[in-house]
Formats: sequence, C-alpha cells, structure tokens
Amino acid sequence: MANRKKVNEAVKWYEKERHKYLNLKAEVEVILREALKENDITFHSIESRVKSVNSFRNKALREKYENPVKEITDLVGIRIITLFEKEIHQISDIIKDLFKIDYERSEDKSDLLDADKMGYKSIHYIAELSSDKIAATELEGFAGVKFEIQIRSILQHAWAEIEHDRNYKFKGKLPKYLQRRFYALAGMLEIADREFNTLSEEVENFRKNEEK
Amino acid sequence: MANRKKVNEAVKWYEKERHKYLNLKAEVEVILREALKENDITFHSIESRVKSVNSFRNKALREKYENPVKEITDLVGIRIITLFEKEIHQISDIIKDLFKIDYERSEDKSDLLDADKMGYKSIHYIAELSSDKIAATELEGFAGVKFEIQIRSILQHAWAEIEHDRNYKFKGKLPKYLQRRFYALAGMLEIADREFNTLSEEVENFRKNEEK
Amino acid sequence: MANRKKVNEAVKWYEKERHKYLNLKAEVEVILREALKENDITFHSIESRVKSVNSFRNKALREKYENPVKEITDLVGIRIITLFEKEIHQISDIIKDLFKIDYERSEDKSDLLDADKMGYKSIHYIAELSSDKIAATELEGFAGVKFEIQIRSILQHAWAEIEHDRNYKFKGKLPKYLQRRFYALAGMLEIADREFNTLSEEVENFRKNEEK
Amino acid sequence: MANRKKVNEAVKWYEKERHKYLNLKAEVEVILREALKENDITFHSIESRVKSVNSFRNKALREKYENPVKEITDLVGIRIITLFEKEIHQISDIIKDLFKIDYERSEDKSDLLDADKMGYKSIHYIAELSSDKIAATELEGFAGVKFEIQIRSILQHAWAEIEHDRNYKFKGKLPKYLQRRFYALAGMLEIADREFNTLSEEVENFRKNEEK
Repeated sequence: MANRKKVNEAVKWYEKERHKYLNLKAEVEVILREALKENDITFHSIESRVKSVNSFRNKALREKYENPVKEITDLVGIRIITLFEKEIHQISDIIKDLFKIDYERSEDKSDLLDADKMGYKSIHYIAELSSDKIAATELEGFAGVKFEIQIRSILQHAWAEIEHDRNYKFKGKLPKYLQRRFYALAGMLEIADREFNTLSEEVENFRKNEEK
Repeated sequence: MANRKKVNEAVKWYEKERHKYLNLKAEVEVILREALKENDITFHSIESRVKSVNSFRNKALREKYENPVKEITDLVGIRIITLFEKEIHQISDIIKDLFKIDYERSEDKSDLLDADKMGYKSIHYIAELSSDKIAATELEGFAGVKFEIQIRSILQHAWAEIEHDRNYKFKGKLPKYLQRRFYALAGMLEIADREFNTLSEEVENFRKNEEK
Repeated sequence: MANRKKVNEAVKWYEKERHKYLNLKAEVEVILREALKENDITFHSIESRVKSVNSFRNKALREKYENPVKEITDLVGIRIITLFEKEIHQISDIIKDLFKIDYERSEDKSDLLDADKMGYKSIHYIAELSSDKIAATELEGFAGVKFEIQIRSILQHAWAEIEHDRNYKFKGKLPKYLQRRFYALAGMLEIADREFNTLSEEVENFRKNEEK
Repeated sequence: MANRKKVNEAVKWYEKERHKYLNLKAEVEVILREALKENDITFHSIESRVKSVNSFRNKALREKYENPVKEITDLVGIRIITLFEKEIHQISDIIKDLFKIDYERSEDKSDLLDADKMGYKSIHYIAELSSDKIAATELEGFAGVKFEIQIRSILQHAWAEIEHDRNYKFKGKLPKYLQRRFYALAGMLEIADREFNTLSEEVENFRKNEEK
C-alpha cells in the first residue's frame, strides 16, 4: 500500500501543475504531426490526453511509488492509430529519432510475444524531449519529464478497446475457455492486418504500373 | 454536368449559412448522446462534421441537382462507432424513435446485401428533427432540414477507412483479383464481429452467474 | 422430364459397361500420380470414384439428356486435394498438358467469381484421353470418353464438404442471413489459404538461406 | 540411445506378428463405425493404419524403451475426422464407453491449452479392448494391447497436415515470427470451426421450424 501522506502531497502538486502538462501534450502532438507529414507517412488518427487528477490519485494509491510524479510516466499519453501494420514500424523509427527513449520501460516491435501466444502486442515508448527540442520550444521546465507514445493499427485498436470494455464491465477472472476466445480473435485480426498490409502493397504496385 | 450558375448561387448561400449547420450538428449530437445514456447503451465513439464549403461545391458540380441545398442530405453528418454489432441494432431503434426518418434514402439493417456478396453494410439514416424537438430547441430554422447518421461497428469502420484510403490513393478500377481480396476481408471481419458479439454475451452471462 | 424408355436403355447399358469405367478410373489415376511425381509436385490426397448405377439413373431421370451416356461427363470422377493453393495452379497446368480438355464445360482458374461474391471456386476439368495415351494403354474403347478432374485445397474441401452436408440434411432454401454466414466463411478460408501459401514460401526461403 | 540388441529382437518379433495387428485395426474400425451409426453421429471420414516395420524400428531406436512392443502404443492408429467440432465431443463420449481408456497417456477435451496459446488441440485416446469385446471377437491375443484413436475436425486436420508437411520439409527450428504465423492461423481456424458449429445448429433449428 502506498504512503497516504506522500500521495496527498503529490496530488496537491499535480493539481497545481497539471496545466503545464497540457502544454507538453500539445507540443508533442505538434512535433509528431509535423514529422509524420514531412516523412509522408499516413496514419488513421492521433489521440492524446493528460491524466486526470482523479486517475493520478488512484494510480498513486494503487502502486508503491517512491516518487509518484517521477515514476508515473504516462501523465501525458499520445496514441497513434494507423491503417496498416507497416506504418507502425515506419512511425516507430521516426519516434526513436525525434525523442530520447527510455528503452527499459518501452515495448518495442522487437519485443514480440512468444510464437504461440496471441494477444495485444502493445508497442509503446516512454520518451522525453531531447535538449535541442527543449531549447527550441518554450518547454524548459520539461527536461527529463517522461511521456508515453502508443502505436497501434486500427484492428489492434479495435481488439484492445473491446478487451478493455470487457475488463471494465467484469473485473473478475474469466474461465479459460472464454479467455481463449479473445486470444483466438487476436490471432485472427493479426492475419487480417497482414492481409491488409500486403494487399495495400499490391494495390500500390498495380497503381505504379498503370501510371507508366 | 451541373448548371454552373445554379451551383455558384448555392455555394454563396452555403458560405453564409454554414455556421447555422454547426449549431444543428451540435444539437443533434447532444440529443443522441443523451438518448444513448438514458437507454444505457454503450458505444465506442461519436464523430460529427459539417461539410466544408469546398466539398459542397465539388459535390454540387459533380451531380445534377435541381436544388443542391435541399438535395445534399449530408451537410451535417454524424457517425456512431460501436464496439459490438448488437449495439448497431439497439442504436438504430433509438434513432428511429428520436428523429423523422426518410426511409427511402436510408439504408436500414433490413436492407442486407445478397447472401454471397461481401462488403461494407453501411447502415445510415437520412433524418430530420421532429416538430416537438424543434419547438424545444432554438433550431426553428431547421424544420425539414436533413442530416445523416451512420452507425458502424469498430471493425466495419476499420474496413471502410482502409477501403476509403485505397480509393483516395488510386482512383482507377482495380483488377478483380485484388478487389476480391478486399471483399474477402469484409467477410472475415463480419465473422470477427459476430464472434465478439456472442463472446460478450457469454461473458455477461458468466458475470451474472458469478454475482448470484 | 426425361424420356423414361431412353433412360432405361441407358441404365441397362451402364450396368453392363460400368466395369470398364473402373479401368479408366484406375488408369487416369495412375497417369496423374506419375505426372505429379515426375514434376515433383506435392499434394494432400487423390480420391476417385465411378458413378454408381443408382446415381446414374437418378441423374439421367432428373435432366433432359438426348444421350445420357455421352452427356454425363462425370461417370469417372477424380478429385485432387492439395495442401496449398499454389499447388492447384501447378496441377492445373499439368492436367492441361496430360489430357484433351473440353474447355467449354470446364471451370478454370481464370473463371473467377465476381470480386465481391464469395463461395466455392470449384476448379474442374472435363477431359478425355489423348490418342497417344490411348495407343499406349489398353483403353482403346475410351477414345472420346469424358471424365472429370476436380482440384481443391484442403480448406476449400472442408468448406465444400460442410456445405454439401448442409444441402443433404436440408433441401430447402435457407434464409439470406444464414446463407450469408456460409459465404463469409468461404471468404475467411480464402484468406487462410493465401496466408498458408505465402507462409510456406517464406519457410522455404528461410530453409534455403539456412542451408547455404 | 536405445539398446540396439533389444531393438533388433523387437523388430524381428514385430515382423512376424504385424499381420495380427491388421486384424486388430480392422476390428476396431468396425466396432467404431457401428457405434457411430447406432448413435446416429455423422463424421467426415475414418482413416486407419498399422505402423510399418520401418517406422517401428526408427521409433524404437529413437526412444529409450524398456520394452518397445508394450510401450509403443500406436502400432494401430485410427483417426476420425469430423465436419463439426461438436461431433468431436460426441465421439469422445462414445469412445470412452466402447473401450478401456488409459487416461494418463490420453489427451482429452478437458486438457485444454493455456488460454492464450494457440496450436493444434490434439484429442487422442490410448485405448484397449475391454474383456467382453475380446470374448465376443476372435481377438483373444489382444488383451492388454493398446491402440490410439485420434479425433479432429476437418479444419484442425487441414492445419495439422500443413504443419506436418512443414516439419517434414524443414527439420530445423523456425524463427519466432514465422512460427507465430502458424499459430495465428490455428486461432483463426478455431474461430471458423466455432462459426461452422453454431451455423449448423441454426440451420438445424430453422429446418425443424420449417417442418412444423
């Protein structure tokens, strides 16, 4: 259990400082959108949020943090949803160029699940602004402040949203035969993602040939 | 080809009036959100937009309207994205209660595709505010003004977005063997939707039994 | 309705001659197996049958043949079941080399279904022995006698067997929403076939690289 | 490594005795077919084989048996392939009634894989004839002799055949990203099996209603 006094202090601090994180969120989103545009990478949508004071408190109470403000690394959360799986990898590469990545706390495309384990392969980076980005913006206060960037295909997103809804409606443990059906669906959507991917490449090749 | 003079007049009119449609959009969204909440129906998200002046002009030029302002029925467009297929049907029923529906121009859940034809089953309603809704709001000017409400599961949405991206990147006609792969994916996602549906019902039954 | 006297004569004739078709079946199967082996083409299994006298009679009664013996082209039926879709195309090419094909009554890989129509793409050839094959064997009597060769992947076979079972248990017409579910499954298995296909190619490439 | 002398003796013994196992195989197949017919349970096909002397020798050499003849429990192997998953369970129940089952060496429908692990759920029973069956037949010598019965749906069979073909063509270890694709396909076919199952039940219900 967390130290209640320490949590209260952290919450008070966050109430006062939260508006600055709204600036960080906006800035990171702009940096990302510009970089994706420059590199001509398409995506479906970008969602972003700053953790509410309430869910900050709940998380701080639930876990045993020494210093919640430092250790909660998703006060700012950005989610990029792509149409195609290949864009996940393109965007990963760009994020690794744009920001300082805390690889130990990130889950990369190279951290695959075991071969026969299906489920949501959440690619996300715990990142911070590099010093030149901080110099170039008005975000001096945010040196060393971490934020989280998730990247998902729209089909992975659909699966994760449904799984999340399930967890929300029923906190208990599902029997194995029901859990299994969720995971089999993850396997099926993984194949659909791959098929959309190769199909879009073949459409692109066909288009290029037509235009010759 | 459309009558250019008629189109120009319509565009001028729309430029002046468009801000009112923003009000209509906001109002319809509020009515919908309240009704869904009251009926305890969950959904993934609601998106809404008012057609831009530019795409109004393009559509008016492309088609042969007698009166573009009356005949373009999606100046206001609302899209409800659900997690589960069953919610599409629940929400359809609510929409038919809330608004006056122009059934001739709507596509209902009963208008299914042929059994062996796969593809996007777009359920959408062309609707207008009923007179009591108009009386209750400040939207007097909008008697008889039509708007469009689409309802899709998140998997149907994923398919439609990818198909739309394809059409955007390549306007030409794809050869049959490539088209077919899009439609086969639609069939596959239809099965995934059904499996998520029955799975969520079984989870719900399990939950109820646990709580006894 | 068929001419009953004509049918009776044909049945009598078939009862006497059917044993010769057993020879034809055996011979065609041997020719096929040897050609597949020579060309190093793998497959799952070959099934073959000679139509029973009973089902000959039923078919002759059901249709309006001028000459049932000539017009029923599947007295001998051979079915080749492959593991992978690519083998269907390799085997098609071999069959077209081995036998004289009646293209008008055959369904070739080029006769695809419409892009958005799912269902069983039955590739089958109505064939006869070429004169040099007849000279080389003891099948002189079979000049001009037609037989049928079907080629299916094992997943197409699974779908077709289940569909056939359904038709057998319930002759009536299914409502559209149930039919549609069969066709969506056909679309899904088509994608599984494609994924097995490309996967087997990537395994093969990996193997070749390993052995270098 | 196995004791070569012991193996040679066992192989010699098996060469002399193998013809008796052909009788056992035939008898078990008859018992099964009759029981399935009596219970009105449909299935796709039954395959059976007696292990060849060669593969007996190879297996005996590969493993460390004290007594290969007793410990190799699949000298006779029967495989039942069903159209629908539900038939697997019906047939399991019948097999458990018909034969003495060695549950320790069998894999039952209750031994499920972990929820998120996809792959081939091989249901198989190591069985022997009960004493009343032996009394009723001419198989006195086969008291205590074990045989194996596998049950698979046709889609599980397709997956297992392709996986087996892969292992045959490439003995090495595949990299995780390729293995994963096989397992994702297993998840997808598991969903297809479930959909065929529920679809066949709905067709059956529709049929019953029609006939009223």
